[in-house]
Amino acid sequence: MANTEHSAAVAAFSERFGELFTTNLTLREQHAHTQTWLPNQPAEGVLFVTDKQMVVDAVKLCAQYHCPIIPFGTGTSLEGHINAPQGGICIDLSRMDQILHIHAEDLTAVVQPGVTREALNQALRHTGLFFPIDPGANASLGGMASTRASGTNAVRYGTMKDVVLSLEVVTAQGELIRTASRAKKTAAGYDLTRLFVGSEGTLGIITELSLKIFGRPEVIAGGVCAFPSVLAACNAVIMTIQAGIPVSRIELLDALQIQACNRYSKLTMVEQPTLFVEFHGSEASVTEQAEVFADIAAELGAAEFNWSSDQQELAQLWKARHNAFFAAQALRPGTRAYSSDACVPISRLAECVEATRQDLAASGMVATILGHVGDGNFHIILLVDLNNPAEVEQAEAVVARISQRAIAMEGTCTGEHGIGQGKQSYLQEELGATVDLMRRIKQALDPLNLMNPGKIFS
Amino acid sequence: MANTEHSAAVAAFSERFGELFTTNLTLREQHAHTQTWLPNQPAEGVLFVTDKQMVVDAVKLCAQYHCPIIPFGTGTSLEGHINAPQGGICIDLSRMDQILHIHAEDLTAVVQPGVTREALNQALRHTGLFFPIDPGANASLGGMASTRASGTNAVRYGTMKDVVLSLEVVTAQGELIRTASRAKKTAAGYDLTRLFVGSEGTLGIITELSLKIFGRPEVIAGGVCAFPSVLAACNAVIMTIQAGIPVSRIELLDALQIQACNRYSKLTMVEQPTLFVEFHGSEASVTEQAEVFADIAAELGAAEFNWSSDQQELAQLWKARHNAFFAAQALRPGTRAYSSDACVPISRLAECVEATRQDLAASGMVATILGHVGDGNFHIILLVDLNNPAEVEQAEAVVARISQRAIAMEGTCTGEHGIGQGKQSYLQEELGATVDLMRRIKQALDPLNLMNPGKIFS
Ligand SMILES: Cc1cc2nc3c(=O)[nH]c(=O)nc-3n(C[C@H](O)[C@H](O)[C@H](O)COP(=O)(O)OP(=O)(O)OC[C@H]3O[C@@H](n4cnc5c(N)ncnc54)[C@H](O)[C@@H]3O)c2cc1C
Ligand SMILES: Cc1cc2nc3c(=O)[nH]c(=O)nc-3n(C[C@H](O)[C@H](O)[C@H](O)COP(=O)(O)OP(=O)(O)OC[C@H]3O[C@@H](n4cnc5c(N)ncnc54)[C@H](O)[C@@H]3O)c2cc1C
Repeated sequence: MANTEHSAAVAAFSERFGELFTTNLTLREQHAHTQTWLPNQPAEGVLFVTDKQMVVDAVKLCAQYHCPIIPFGTGTSLEGHINAPQGGICIDLSRMDQILHIHAEDLTAVVQPGVTREALNQALRHTGLFFPIDPGANASLGGMASTRASGTNAVRYGTMKDVVLSLEVVTAQGELIRTASRAKKTAAGYDLTRLFVGSEGTLGIITELSLKIFGRPEVIAGGVCAFPSVLAACNAVIMTIQAGIPVSRIELLDALQIQACNRYSKLTMVEQPTLFVEFHGSEASVTEQAEVFADIAAELGAAEFNWSSDQQELAQLWKARHNAFFAAQALRPGTRAYSSDACVPISRLAECVEATRQDLAASGMVATILGHVGDGNFHIILLVDLNNPAEVEQAEAVVARISQRAIAMEGTCTGEHGIGQGKQSYLQEELGATVDLMRRIKQALDPLNLMNPGKIFS
Repeated sequence: MANTEHSAAVAAFSERFGELFTTNLTLREQHAHTQTWLPNQPAEGVLFVTDKQMVVDAVKLCAQYHCPIIPFGTGTSLEGHINAPQGGICIDLSRMDQILHIHAEDLTAVVQPGVTREALNQALRHTGLFFPIDPGANASLGGMASTRASGTNAVRYGTMKDVVLSLEVVTAQGELIRTASRAKKTAAGYDLTRLFVGSEGTLGIITELSLKIFGRPEVIAGGVCAFPSVLAACNAVIMTIQAGIPVSRIELLDALQIQACNRYSKLTMVEQPTLFVEFHGSEASVTEQAEVFADIAAELGAAEFNWSSDQQELAQLWKARHNAFFAAQALRPGTRAYSSDACVPISRLAECVEATRQDLAASGMVATILGHVGDGNFHIILLVDLNNPAEVEQAEAVVARISQRAIAMEGTCTGEHGIGQGKQSYLQEELGATVDLMRRIKQALDPLNLMNPGKIFS
């Protein structure tokens, strides 16, 4: 990576930005940590930007020196998204963390990219409004937009593609542009908002987001329900969705994942495949939803479905769900937990998850299955000893089979984590010649290939 | 337009496609009719395609002769979208009208682009499912995707950007690609689905759509409610949305538009600014919604809100609403009805509509105001004598002011009709340098500028 232009860029950044720029190795490595078996590939320096003009200046400097730029939110992405395989400068946006406007009357909020989902909800807590998209990590909204993130509420409220109204972006040329107005609907030209959503930092740097926010439901109720098998649980999900119950969360955790959560979060759930379910609405509506769900669950041999609208009890439940990744990690200390992600049409969910379960069992790996199953989206968490090459190889083969199985069922190799470095070959298998169109767009907007090179495609 | 390459293309099309290709002037003019004061600019020939291979062949032939291609669905777009300012061949997709799959269990349907919204709903009528997007015209689903259309149900069910899961497209190079899988969620690379949605035929030809469909609500109820002023009606809309009532339709018609509808559809509504409202849900839920709405309306001085769930009564109502354009047209025979479209954040709706009302009154033009106000989206219908240049000029000035007013209120010059030929200068005013990014994408995907040239930008 010793590249004279990059070295000159580093010198120019030091000169220009002083203390806000660092070449400290530990910091650089932290900014390129990866949740996979992909190697850590640190950038050559990290710039902590504090406003959009600094982003413009940094991009222009990088363009001048042909130096790659790796945007960074909170670094919780799962496919090597923030690695710097070609060197370059990491642009850390976490200090651009201002909530600029809450337009309660329009149900919109305007935020800087470093605001986290929890910080936004904290700011909204007295307004009767909330922001629903909730990846397991407390990610930044700029990072979430860039990976097209979703989470447990997506089955009811959609993903980042549905809640971003408009973005302000610094292009690869260092221009500051706005993708759309703040109107709820638009037919004004190409949908650049949704082109940048999910572009993984490869087309520009998001410096501001206008987001939809939602009225907090009158009543929130929910509970857990244990099933005799993963198959039965998935069939309950399919029936729930097909019955049109407007469930706001419906999450699967397999028996091992429940065991992990019990240990990690000190709970006493029955250690069987389980659905975590939540309903939003009026008192009458949540009762109706819960009753129809209970009937479906009973039909599929589930234990009794106990639900409540006690907010503390529910909060404990969802905290355990959000900690599932760390709980799984603790099942096998010394290993790395790697989460893979697939999504299929809901009619294929049971078949796909069951085949995955059998595959994992046959492989003998320590692995849990969980996911946002209401959208046909599920994950496995593999606990891999990175010092054991045979195990890594076996894990890679499992991920390949999951991706290919989902694709074969008219689904996708990633419902929400994105492509990054890790899933490029599956993207190719899934979309073939379509990937060339993506490349042409990349080439048109970033002809020097400065913005997060080596991600989505190489 | 006499261009030897185009003439050679016409000859090649005749030779290759025989009776499915025509150069008949009447047919060519029909295929380029425009709902505006823009002149009719017919293509040099019209090809009636019957399958995707024919589309591929046609595009390759056009590429060979550098001959423009104008995709055509049902020709109901409103901004000169289907004109052929640079000549070329019109590709009429209306005969590709097969419904390929109804995956009721997945709430998805796969259709050819020439299927109309009414034909799809006809096919769904025994399934308990429906497709909600309903522009006033019985447009083709390919055309609706291409203009990012919406309609009366958008406030609850979204626009075409929200209901298209995946597209099959013939690119400008004649390649057949698929933008995404049929999974409900995806993070697999750039969102090409939503890049093609709203691209107005300028990036490729849609040959297949995978669409979300929805469970028909248990109960549908609704009614009309007359207000003392347009301002009061808009304020009722704002309060309804802010109260979180999940209204499925809320439409404004001003006094003149109501008068027009009464005459055209033989109704006896009170001739005052009126909201048409509809609620979907259980018996209890629609009752609750209707009662809260009635309270809001009363607070704003409305006449009593009479609602019902009599399906015949409701059907008559919505038929009258869908015929509003033709009803307005009949107000002043011999003129052309031109519909312009703007959308603002809901908090600015009352202010924007009221300013527009005053502007229209001052102009002395015959014009109605109506629209899908729940999303902040409204239209004016101007009745213009195209033989009177002064009147056309005055109408153009009104449209300019509406667009600029919406933009100044953080809104857009088009919520759903698109840019076509008519709104290019307002797109520029609205998004400025962003339009250059759109141009670069166009250039990357269609370097010869063959696909519907002169639309969105020139
Ligand atoms: C325990 C755990 C649970 C998770 N659960 C979920 C889940 O349920 N659902 C889900 O979708 N994901 C989940 N994730 C993945 C991760 O949280 C998401 O991908 C999240 O969106 C990443 O946000 P971030 O701020 O950490 O972005 P980063 O990891 O910092 O960056 C992600 C990508 O976006 C780019 N980027 C970041 N900020 C910007 C910007 N302002 N402009 C342009 N590009 C930018 C980066 O270059 C990179 O390519 C989970 C991760 C963990 C560790
Ligand atoms: C009375 C009336 C009421 C209306 N009400 C509404 C409304 O409420 N909401 C709304 O959104 N619109 C409305 N419209 C506008 C119009 O119905 C929509 O724009 C509709 O989406 C156009 O569909 P179409 O099939 O007629 O497309 P066309 O007019 O044939 O084409 C529209 C554009 O799409 C392109 N195109 C068509 N098919 C394809 C394809 N298969 N692949 C690629 N490009 C293609 C064309 O080149 C053109 O640029 C109304 C129009 C009328 C006349």
